[in-house]
Amino acid sequence: MNTVITIGREFGSGGRELGTRLANELGFAYYDKEIVAEIAQRTELSEQYIKNIMEHRPIIDYPLHFGVTINGFNSPQIQINNSVYTEQHKIIKEYAKKSDCVIVGRCADYILRELNPVRIFVYCDMESKIQRCRARGDDSSDKTDKQMKKYIDDINKGRRLYYEYYTDLRWGDRINYDLCINTTGLSIKDIVPGLAEIVKSISE
Amino acid sequence: MNTVITIGREFGSGGRELGTRLANELGFAYYDKEIVAEIAQRTELSEQYIKNIMEHRPIIDYPLHFGVTINGFNSPQIQINNSVYTEQHKIIKEYAKKSDCVIVGRCADYILRELNPVRIFVYCDMESKIQRCRARGDDSSDKTDKQMKKYIDDINKGRRLYYEYYTDLRWGDRINYDLCINTTGLSIKDIVPGLAEIVKSISE
Repeated sequence: MNTVITIGREFGSGGRELGTRLANELGFAYYDKEIVAEIAQRTELSEQYIKNIMEHRPIIDYPLHFGVTINGFNSPQIQINNSVYTEQHKIIKEYAKKSDCVIVGRCADYILRELNPVRIFVYCDMESKIQRCRARGDDSSDKTDKQMKKYIDDINKGRRLYYEYYTDLRWGDRINYDLCINTTGLSIKDIVPGLAEIVKSISE
Repeated sequence: MNTVITIGREFGSGGRELGTRLANELGFAYYDKEIVAEIAQRTELSEQYIKNIMEHRPIIDYPLHFGVTINGFNSPQIQINNSVYTEQHKIIKEYAKKSDCVIVGRCADYILRELNPVRIFVYCDMESKIQRCRARGDDSSDKTDKQMKKYIDDINKGRRLYYEYYTDLRWGDRINYDLCINTTGLSIKDIVPGLAEIVKSISE
């Protein structure tokens, strides 16, 4: 059976860097934005639209004059959300079947729970998040620290709500992960070899 | 400066095993029960009495006919608790100054916060806790699983309250640790070499 590593991550914590480095160290496939591109191809929705859906819990946000009975389970919006989730579900299972891999975000830990993936959660304090976002130029050059904090908190709130809508688990709750890694003041590059050793020992 | 690893741990999670193995792997000193013995020597209180204090938040539990005004801050019980904590505080700082070391429990992460220790928290699910307690024969041969659960929960509640009484932090909250390790279904022995690598890279 393939070894699958799933990485949940707070926005700004360096989860993607950790994922790519770990995949490189282990010679594993790496899936992150590739999942969005693949869903876009299969559903003909735009990548940006899918990305937006994935960063928020599905909500019904039709204007009141829409003229139909609003029903959360049948609205076109919810149907699109659910079809994106269904595609994502299928694609992630296909990836896990194909080879050893690292999958970042997108409820992969939950979707693949029957395969016992190595589940990692990456987090850090707000100062580190702000620093990391500024360093990589995340749309942040004109924002104050206070505005950055709100921007980061909003994205993380979206991730939490999305995760908790599609799973019966609490996002970031340590019991749902094998390892939780605090990247505050940490050189991600330096911890990856040791982390790869741990993953190998868990998945053997 | 010495490398100090502090290990917070849920009762039944194998934190002590992880600590001793990690200390052996790294050639570090290891302190756990030694702290209690040292406090006993310095205060002339019994080891069992000190251990009891450390597993509970200080409470005032004098009978009402004790005949003095009960004042939480001045009662003899609170004074003993605080003097134990003060000795513990001194001893832990002495250990950290002496050599590289692993210190298990006893608010060491908080007491040594200015030295930036590598802070690990070890936890697992209830089934693993019960299994681990039974395997090491923790006073559990005549207990049902339900009784074991209560026994374990009570000890962990005591640890939480003690920690939160003497620190301004939440026990087990991931942001207060560098690494949180879920030992559910895990071979602690196998992950220690990788963990030692990570510790070396963090503390370099």
